[in-house]
Amino acid sequence: MATVRIVHLKAALRRCRGTSPPPPPWALCRLPNRSIRSFSSVMSPPSKAVVYDEQGPPDAVCKVKELPPVPIKDEDVCVRMLATPINPSDINRIEGVYPVRPPVPTVGGYEGVGEVHSVGSAVLGLRPGDWVIPSPPSSGTWQTYLVKEQSVWHKIDKCTPMEYAATITVNLLTSLRMLEDFVDLKSGDAVVQNGATSIVGQCIIQLARVRGIHSINIIRDRAGSDEVKQKLKKLGADEVFTENQLEVKNVKSLLADIPEPTLGFNCVGGNAASLVLKFLKHGGTMVTYGGMSRKPITVPTSAFIFKDLSLRGFWLQKWMSSDKAKECRDMIDYLLSLTRSGELKYDMELCPFDEFPTALDKALGKLGSQPKQVIKF
Amino acid sequence: MATVRIVHLKAALRRCRGTSPPPPPWALCRLPNRSIRSFSSVMSPPSKAVVYDEQGPPDAVCKVKELPPVPIKDEDVCVRMLATPINPSDINRIEGVYPVRPPVPTVGGYEGVGEVHSVGSAVLGLRPGDWVIPSPPSSGTWQTYLVKEQSVWHKIDKCTPMEYAATITVNLLTSLRMLEDFVDLKSGDAVVQNGATSIVGQCIIQLARVRGIHSINIIRDRAGSDEVKQKLKKLGADEVFTENQLEVKNVKSLLADIPEPTLGFNCVGGNAASLVLKFLKHGGTMVTYGGMSRKPITVPTSAFIFKDLSLRGFWLQKWMSSDKAKECRDMIDYLLSLTRSGELKYDMELCPFDEFPTALDKALGKLGSQPKQVIKF
Repeated sequence: MATVRIVHLKAALRRCRGTSPPPPPWALCRLPNRSIRSFSSVMSPPSKAVVYDEQGPPDAVCKVKELPPVPIKDEDVCVRMLATPINPSDINRIEGVYPVRPPVPTVGGYEGVGEVHSVGSAVLGLRPGDWVIPSPPSSGTWQTYLVKEQSVWHKIDKCTPMEYAATITVNLLTSLRMLEDFVDLKSGDAVVQNGATSIVGQCIIQLARVRGIHSINIIRDRAGSDEVKQKLKKLGADEVFTENQLEVKNVKSLLADIPEPTLGFNCVGGNAASLVLKFLKHGGTMVTYGGMSRKPITVPTSAFIFKDLSLRGFWLQKWMSSDKAKECRDMIDYLLSLTRSGELKYDMELCPFDEFPTALDKALGKLGSQPKQVIKF
Repeated sequence: MATVRIVHLKAALRRCRGTSPPPPPWALCRLPNRSIRSFSSVMSPPSKAVVYDEQGPPDAVCKVKELPPVPIKDEDVCVRMLATPINPSDINRIEGVYPVRPPVPTVGGYEGVGEVHSVGSAVLGLRPGDWVIPSPPSSGTWQTYLVKEQSVWHKIDKCTPMEYAATITVNLLTSLRMLEDFVDLKSGDAVVQNGATSIVGQCIIQLARVRGIHSINIIRDRAGSDEVKQKLKKLGADEVFTENQLEVKNVKSLLADIPEPTLGFNCVGGNAASLVLKFLKHGGTMVTYGGMSRKPITVPTSAFIFKDLSLRGFWLQKWMSSDKAKECRDMIDYLLSLTRSGELKYDMELCPFDEFPTALDKALGKLGSQPKQVIKF
């Protein structure tokens, strides 16, 4: 257990550096863990968790609670969570509007990164101190200690920035698969998307650029749109238009040297989806993966018959249950390598766990447009 | 030339039986043909044709004119047209709202059946008296004599009822390809469609039945809908619902033993398209081939993401230009055999050519709901 102890001391030292004086409430809460570990090596520490007992408005139903220790079975790995994001799908699960959701009461969250705290007797590939992510993602990441079977955990390179490791699956794998699975894109081809400032949007720009694929990007009209355009262009966007700019008879006349896109992505719906369709080449495909405007997608008959457009959808959770997902961990490693090399970056805001209610309000849009909220334990 | 003469005499006799007394105007118009044939065997007879000089409302721009004889070149076949339908796409071409349309002035029509009248010196596979259809369909069928290269013409079995031969391609090939090209259907599977009373709709019911595939059919609410239901059930429809009947929370609860359909067809748009989507199984495909309501198709985001629906389009004219169209004539022969065996039938109204304006009004919907109008020369 020496290794465990050393790692824990290091972790404790690291934690202490950022928590003096006075120590925040969560630092005090951590105290019982150590005492419990001392009398049972096959039980997890107690875990401080964001729990909801019923579906409903997340800011009403989510409570921070301390959960008692759980047994660590032979095949189990106990992970001390380091960081976990608040994704829109997490919110939808709590609201009860997501088609697949864990039975309540349950702990929120679906992805994140943690450090192995202790392992069951039959665990071979992981040891305390390793950094791991649940892969495929798995429910209950909004807590300090998470115990799951070894097969759930994927060991990652510890040089990865923590906030990227915490968010690499739900958004980035969506971006990667949508670029790969619908149209056979070649270097020099183009894609078009709305919601380009979302994390998926930012990653599509960058993953496309890595492959030599042009991106045409549509953003909302709002104050500061010029700065947003500059920012997306720095990431590699070829063109960025606000919706109002596209109120022209032929949007394609706005494309200079960029070929007509064969693939489009929609995470908004309503008019923003129609604009994606207008850009698409004859025979092109639009993939819907979100509906931020809460408006449906409206398509003229001629777009199907004479323009031969295809409309599809993408849902990572379903993809994860397919055969293709076998290669999921290789893809995650590739994406993580891009974050380490700086080829893939996106806006996030780290928030200490004890400020979870504020982070949740930001994720719910109650405080205006905010970057992705990532909880740091 | 003996064969030609005999056939022509027979045809004349056949024509005379139905035209006495007094002879209708078109019978008089036919007289000059014979005199012209007598002084030149390499010229066609003059042709009486529905011509339009400009795009516009069909009842305003279409005129019946006599066109002068044209040369019959070595590879040409001159066909005396027997029957030709007025399809919605013919009307759209005249209106100028069809994406591909012949330059004006031109003769209307795109499919039909005729009898070979005379052939050029290099024509081997066809001879006077043969029944032929243009395959793929070809413009200019609304006239009494049509001269095109031999490669245009496909010889068919003369036992085929004339009105079916005249209409076998545009509607029936659409039905056949839509059942074959999008989803791998097996006996026992189900399809759902709106606009089930259209010719394509009636043929989908029957072609599905031939393959052991169930059909769920949606029709408009109107007087006489019970008779329509009975008629479609006689053709082989498993279920027929009016749109109002489907104003229930879960349309699938109305299906007893029929499995959820994996493939749907939409030729209406608006609410009728949404109803098709509601019936579709998870992962299903809706193919749009028409937009009779002139309303767009509106789809909630969740249908793409969580229900994994695909929306596609079908346009026969584009399909005809694909590699698959090589087998087109085999498919036509198969469909014609089904019309001869009585396994495939649908409503048509034969109309003499001299009553073309009335048939056009019916096809334009000016006289209420009417069966497909087929001009008989």
